[in-house]
Amino acid sequence: MKNLKILPVFNPFDRSLIQEIPMQGKEELEKALETAYRLFTDRKSWLPPHARIAVLGKLETLMREKAEELTILASTEGGKPYMDSRVEIHRAINGVRIAAEEIGRLKGTQIPMGLTAASTGRLAFTMREPIGVVAAISAFNHPLNLIVHQVVTAFAAGCPAIVKPAGTTPMTCLRFVELMQDAGVPTGWVQALILDNEDAEILATDKRVSYLSFIGSAKVGWYLKSKLSPGTRCALEHGGAAPVIVDHDVALEKVVPALAKGGFYHAGQVCVSVQRVFVHHGIARKLAMQLSEAAQKLKVGNPLDPTTEVGPLILPKEADRIHNWTQDAIEEGAELLCGGNKLGETCYAPTVLWNPSDKSKVSQEEIFGPVVCVYSYEDLDVAIAAANAIPYHFQAAVFSRNLDTALYCVQNLQASAVMVNDHTAFRVDWMPFGGWDASGEGVGGIGYTMREMTREKLMVMKSEVF
Amino acid sequence: MKNLKILPVFNPFDRSLIQEIPMQGKEELEKALETAYRLFTDRKSWLPPHARIAVLGKLETLMREKAEELTILASTEGGKPYMDSRVEIHRAINGVRIAAEEIGRLKGTQIPMGLTAASTGRLAFTMREPIGVVAAISAFNHPLNLIVHQVVTAFAAGCPAIVKPAGTTPMTCLRFVELMQDAGVPTGWVQALILDNEDAEILATDKRVSYLSFIGSAKVGWYLKSKLSPGTRCALEHGGAAPVIVDHDVALEKVVPALAKGGFYHAGQVCVSVQRVFVHHGIARKLAMQLSEAAQKLKVGNPLDPTTEVGPLILPKEADRIHNWTQDAIEEGAELLCGGNKLGETCYAPTVLWNPSDKSKVSQEEIFGPVVCVYSYEDLDVAIAAANAIPYHFQAAVFSRNLDTALYCVQNLQASAVMVNDHTAFRVDWMPFGGWDASGEGVGGIGYTMREMTREKLMVMKSEVF
Amino acid sequence: MKNLKILPVFNPFDRSLIQEIPMQGKEELEKALETAYRLFTDRKSWLPPHARIAVLGKLETLMREKAEELTILASTEGGKPYMDSRVEIHRAINGVRIAAEEIGRLKGTQIPMGLTAASTGRLAFTMREPIGVVAAISAFNHPLNLIVHQVVTAFAAGCPAIVKPAGTTPMTCLRFVELMQDAGVPTGWVQALILDNEDAEILATDKRVSYLSFIGSAKVGWYLKSKLSPGTRCALEHGGAAPVIVDHDVALEKVVPALAKGGFYHAGQVCVSVQRVFVHHGIARKLAMQLSEAAQKLKVGNPLDPTTEVGPLILPKEADRIHNWTQDAIEEGAELLCGGNKLGETCYAPTVLWNPSDKSKVSQEEIFGPVVCVYSYEDLDVAIAAANAIPYHFQAAVFSRNLDTALYCVQNLQASAVMVNDHTAFRVDWMPFGGWDASGEGVGGIGYTMREMTREKLMVMKSEVF
Amino acid sequence: MKNLKILPVFNPFDRSLIQEIPMQGKEELEKALETAYRLFTDRKSWLPPHARIAVLGKLETLMREKAEELTILASTEGGKPYMDSRVEIHRAINGVRIAAEEIGRLKGTQIPMGLTAASTGRLAFTMREPIGVVAAISAFNHPLNLIVHQVVTAFAAGCPAIVKPAGTTPMTCLRFVELMQDAGVPTGWVQALILDNEDAEILATDKRVSYLSFIGSAKVGWYLKSKLSPGTRCALEHGGAAPVIVDHDVALEKVVPALAKGGFYHAGQVCVSVQRVFVHHGIARKLAMQLSEAAQKLKVGNPLDPTTEVGPLILPKEADRIHNWTQDAIEEGAELLCGGNKLGETCYAPTVLWNPSDKSKVSQEEIFGPVVCVYSYEDLDVAIAAANAIPYHFQAAVFSRNLDTALYCVQNLQASAVMVNDHTAFRVDWMPFGGWDASGEGVGGIGYTMREMTREKLMVMKSEVF
Repeated sequence: MKNLKILPVFNPFDRSLIQEIPMQGKEELEKALETAYRLFTDRKSWLPPHARIAVLGKLETLMREKAEELTILASTEGGKPYMDSRVEIHRAINGVRIAAEEIGRLKGTQIPMGLTAASTGRLAFTMREPIGVVAAISAFNHPLNLIVHQVVTAFAAGCPAIVKPAGTTPMTCLRFVELMQDAGVPTGWVQALILDNEDAEILATDKRVSYLSFIGSAKVGWYLKSKLSPGTRCALEHGGAAPVIVDHDVALEKVVPALAKGGFYHAGQVCVSVQRVFVHHGIARKLAMQLSEAAQKLKVGNPLDPTTEVGPLILPKEADRIHNWTQDAIEEGAELLCGGNKLGETCYAPTVLWNPSDKSKVSQEEIFGPVVCVYSYEDLDVAIAAANAIPYHFQAAVFSRNLDTALYCVQNLQASAVMVNDHTAFRVDWMPFGGWDASGEGVGGIGYTMREMTREKLMVMKSEVF
Repeated sequence: MKNLKILPVFNPFDRSLIQEIPMQGKEELEKALETAYRLFTDRKSWLPPHARIAVLGKLETLMREKAEELTILASTEGGKPYMDSRVEIHRAINGVRIAAEEIGRLKGTQIPMGLTAASTGRLAFTMREPIGVVAAISAFNHPLNLIVHQVVTAFAAGCPAIVKPAGTTPMTCLRFVELMQDAGVPTGWVQALILDNEDAEILATDKRVSYLSFIGSAKVGWYLKSKLSPGTRCALEHGGAAPVIVDHDVALEKVVPALAKGGFYHAGQVCVSVQRVFVHHGIARKLAMQLSEAAQKLKVGNPLDPTTEVGPLILPKEADRIHNWTQDAIEEGAELLCGGNKLGETCYAPTVLWNPSDKSKVSQEEIFGPVVCVYSYEDLDVAIAAANAIPYHFQAAVFSRNLDTALYCVQNLQASAVMVNDHTAFRVDWMPFGGWDASGEGVGGIGYTMREMTREKLMVMKSEVF
Repeated sequence: MKNLKILPVFNPFDRSLIQEIPMQGKEELEKALETAYRLFTDRKSWLPPHARIAVLGKLETLMREKAEELTILASTEGGKPYMDSRVEIHRAINGVRIAAEEIGRLKGTQIPMGLTAASTGRLAFTMREPIGVVAAISAFNHPLNLIVHQVVTAFAAGCPAIVKPAGTTPMTCLRFVELMQDAGVPTGWVQALILDNEDAEILATDKRVSYLSFIGSAKVGWYLKSKLSPGTRCALEHGGAAPVIVDHDVALEKVVPALAKGGFYHAGQVCVSVQRVFVHHGIARKLAMQLSEAAQKLKVGNPLDPTTEVGPLILPKEADRIHNWTQDAIEEGAELLCGGNKLGETCYAPTVLWNPSDKSKVSQEEIFGPVVCVYSYEDLDVAIAAANAIPYHFQAAVFSRNLDTALYCVQNLQASAVMVNDHTAFRVDWMPFGGWDASGEGVGGIGYTMREMTREKLMVMKSEVF
Repeated sequence: MKNLKILPVFNPFDRSLIQEIPMQGKEELEKALETAYRLFTDRKSWLPPHARIAVLGKLETLMREKAEELTILASTEGGKPYMDSRVEIHRAINGVRIAAEEIGRLKGTQIPMGLTAASTGRLAFTMREPIGVVAAISAFNHPLNLIVHQVVTAFAAGCPAIVKPAGTTPMTCLRFVELMQDAGVPTGWVQALILDNEDAEILATDKRVSYLSFIGSAKVGWYLKSKLSPGTRCALEHGGAAPVIVDHDVALEKVVPALAKGGFYHAGQVCVSVQRVFVHHGIARKLAMQLSEAAQKLKVGNPLDPTTEVGPLILPKEADRIHNWTQDAIEEGAELLCGGNKLGETCYAPTVLWNPSDKSKVSQEEIFGPVVCVYSYEDLDVAIAAANAIPYHFQAAVFSRNLDTALYCVQNLQASAVMVNDHTAFRVDWMPFGGWDASGEGVGGIGYTMREMTREKLMVMKSEVF
């Protein structure tokens, strides 16, 4: 029987088996879809805003109480160092609070009438309604906070949600959904399913699903989009190969730590990780050497050790892939300044490459590992053109003391966000966040997602009164 | 050679040949895409807002001068009665003005920082940038105004546009694009191409296209969406089968004319045409008879005759299809109250059907012709459930004097807009407009479209100053 | 010495002395102003948003813990029945939460540039800054919640605040300011002063004050406004004489309880209390009689008794004034349907008057006591004209089942808010709230007040980059 | 008889009499107030939005036709050089267009309900209504554009307006009001009155006036505010003494022309004229000398000469006052770098003062003449403190290439707007514009003013439907 399949969950650092989780199959999926759809189509079962606010308030309290447990759970199965995992859990708690706040902002507006003679005698307003069933397919790199962004938003917006966590990090999601139920989410409003890829596609493309929230690889995301049922809206969050421009006038003692954090945080397994650093030739080599020194000082190891700064890649094959890309880059002309080797099955030494070829994969594709490329540039426009040359456009950065240079880069970098004097991985949970072009579709951020999960209904009242 | 293909344009009323238009092929399409893409990627070629505003101001003036010419041209090839075509042209002129106004509303907002300790020391704002090349595939039923909504919006938003008009009504579009050029649109920013369906699909799915605006059948729209390149955003505007609820307490002398207008305007070839009228049993038959009388009084004929109220269908096969659907409905139990017969090759008599079966096509699918169905209901909830039962959800209406009844219907009808005491086809060009679920994707309306054709770029400035 | 003055606080129900509170004089006032002004002008002392949010979070928790204490304190000195006082305290707690949320909404927006040729080459944004020192002069009728609206808002907006509570209800305010300090409000940011009227005027009109928030009588409010220093902004919240229109088609069993609640809640000592009820002649007498019955059933008495529905007036002279007005109205033609007599020194029997003269004080001025006037009308327009005829315009209401009638009244009643099928005293703390014309200036409501306590600073960056 | 008083209008350049205009007295004023009030209180006389838009469209056309006439008229009576007067007229035309656009933005919003249990079962929206009769008292320095900002806004917002132009420049206003009537403004909606100061005060403080728009001296403005009737809202636009910070890293060849334009435009008779320039000591003297050179090259003379760059002061006494202030400053320690002398009765030579004393009037008060003070600073914080030290806070500027310096000045300058790398007198008619603290009250800018001239009415519909 299909639903006797078991998902083994491993600790990515030592590859030990943490737990075996029974998977759901087509039958449970159908039941989940039916439950969610029935809740949505029966308006009487909808939860009023104050009830959703109350649940989220309780959830916030529960999460605070369980913060340490969640931190360790997420760190254990996801491999993010304890110190960073803790930050994630606290951001997730804050995200729940933001979602509660945003419920009051799901509102409509007046549409003016009478601006033409033909439209006089009317009064018109819009209101926001939940869009329908949300299917969320999540990723491993933020095992709790992504669920908040995909599922708490749905609940807050009034949409029943079905979530399929990453196969590598299901436990944090399952625990969190338990907490949601403990906080009072009524049966059926949030359902977590452990599905294989085939069934995940069935979930994503079912006609009862009104909104697909997908976080993961571009390849899978765009494929799923092409298979959606008519009327299903989607948000896709893929990766990038985040570019940074560094002008000659900066203080390296501030820039280098920022780049090291932005590039090696969570072993680079972040969609807005610093990847391609274009540095003015006057300071490029110096910056690269300092970044290399900083990279070598980072403590790589067991994520549960509170002093660990860089943990493992999520899977052995990822470490292998990254190693291959790095070796290819070196063969194609890059100079290896540090790293370039595996440290065990899944850990990879923080790596800095000097001037890789434009054609190398590390220059063209998302590395999603602890590898930063430094390129020396002579001409700012050429650097910007190189930064923009690939189809992935997510967050970018510029370091400069000069106002015009900063604004010029902000204007000309193809990116959904440009950080000025900060690394590319900066994010707060209420800001708009999402890839452009090949990097994704839709705009994330708690409030943005909640608005995308609703739709405006217009009411036009005609009356001789007006 | 491909590009020697000729498109014959017929007068839909008398099927006379108006003109033969040379079509473009793959080569011209490639050139157009390359031109548009080059303009977009070279930021120096972008037109500043004031230049776009100036062009639109001149365009408005030119359109006013050519209003009569455009009215007749659109009426001749599109078959919309002169009186209604005139309204369309003036709405299109107003639409150009709205687009000019909306340029100043394409703006960003502050994103607050410092709400958490980790986000202090920053100042953040968003700005809006054009999204890229817009491909517009248009429909015949509003040969000018749809072009304004799809193409003038793109130009106003700063996007190069390539438009493929409906094969039946290309002349109005070509003339309008000429006027745009006369008004100062620089070469390449707006290109009209006469393409066959195969090439239109190539246009829609080319990777250089960032935004597809499609108005037409649901079948083609959802197909095209599934074929889009990664990163291409789309707006799809399909049809519906607009439901109306009529309560027992209304004044029939006001309701009937509204229904007649909303149902038979442009021979029902409007995506929000009144199609399914659910009437309280106490007045249902009376309303149906009065609507039938009103339908029979409508003057059907040559659209160029200024007294004509209902013109032809766009193609003979459409008249045949409508006739078949009507006959099927009658066979399946509907009572024919008036109409039900063709008047020549393309004209169809305004038709009222009483209580067609739920299973009949006229109850299930968009008729897109001059046929209105009247259903008697006993229970309001049952009527609403019937109204919502099909997957097309666009505009709806309720007629009632009772406040609670009106609000109840507004709340419970699945529709992007609910008119209270007005027919479903009400629209102004600045209001949000678009189908829900199977009826489309995205939100139209001049300003809404312009915002969808842009994207927000976030700038986060980090500084010790703050 | 001035500052040895003592303020005795009485229980308004039994006139027992609760406490004697030392008053502050000119010296303490000067010191408070200096402290507040110094904090504001030294930008380094400003609290970042996250610090203010944290304080408000702690305050909310403290208030929940002390809810019963605050309820009894407010009820004891203010005379509001326990059941209603409890509601007030919980609204106040919610208000603190709203204020915390609104901090993130104190943000600016982009101002588009380049809409004219002369404005190209610029990028412009606004930001919000606190306006300066806030002086708050408060009223007795909501001893806690008004302080939240006047003082928590100021703190949340980043303004140092000095509050002078009502002389009759200082204890709740003082206790609350203690709680604010316990929650972490740094010294000087919120200061409560017990002042006599002369010193209160000095506070209000000091040039270091940037914002006066006054809740109280129109006479005092408009006087203070005329004395403000140049540059001081103000919000004045005075009273009204709230009108209600009742159409013939309503269900009296729903309308009467709403009117009883809206008219007799807190013995009518609310600025939006139901005062003048204009009823269609077909049901007017019936409604008046039922309202009279309902009034007589209300339990008047000791506010600390949890079953008490109507408590005392705040002062004996108020009971006397109300009695005089009622007697005058009767002499001038009104029929007394119930009440019309004092019940002890400060309690007054809930009173319904039938058809008082337009000239009577009860028809012209704010009663601010448990007296409701019912007028029979023949013509809706005449009733609306009567409702609008006095210069006080605050909240109003209409009861009708008819959509057009409801909209007509909404449109034609001079009021900042019109309730449809609800009484005039409805309020939530996030909605806009404030009198029009003689009834006040500015717009209250937590977020509205916070925005008024800030001002937008525009930054225009000129650069050849754009 | 009072109303036989005559106002003589002089050419300020040669003091020749241009015209004698009959003044209105108390009787005409009373009639005008009565007319305006009656129009406002009779909602049936209100003009629907489309009618106001149509009038403004015609007005724009008429103004384009009369642009040259208006330019010369304004220049002749107001003394602004032809080249700048022309700019003003075209800005005024654009302002009319903006006002027409903003009509569609006078709209309300949904107020969410159900965020607490007590507020469920309701649907709430706001709408905007005109506030009432607008009294506009205007200034001479922009004889046309100020009228647009004060009167066209009122008409566009739906308020009847009574305007009293400056006594020195009444003709442009009267001509413009004629054009408004030609464009279709119905009788009584816009009335221009030539009043003496006593009657102007009566106008401003009449209880039928709901909104006072005053542009002029701080002394008069704050006085009038203190005399307003209860319920009258006001906007006051006074002057400033605009500060500029210039850092050491700038390109003087760009800064100096900007300062010269911002300081000597319209002989400095602009409320945001560059007055106090604080320059980093490394370049201060050099900048001052170059500014002096630029000042000496300006062509001073007859405003009607199209090459004139600086015209006369509005009155001989103003030239005398400026001369006295300059002489005082020199006596108090300032060095005169250029100018410092009268050129005829009303013209004053563009003057640059080096390091005037902090105590001098030119450092403390608004000069409102062609005098720029340059101060050398050593420490940026000291310069900012000096810039902020006076109670007038309007627009300010900073010139720097350094991002942090620019942001630091934007943050710390007390100003409603801070220009980065541009002079203080920059303004576009749609941006927020208004003095802080002693410099004024309210926020100008076409759309901002229109919103201030309206008020939000809230409608809360309670229903068991929700």
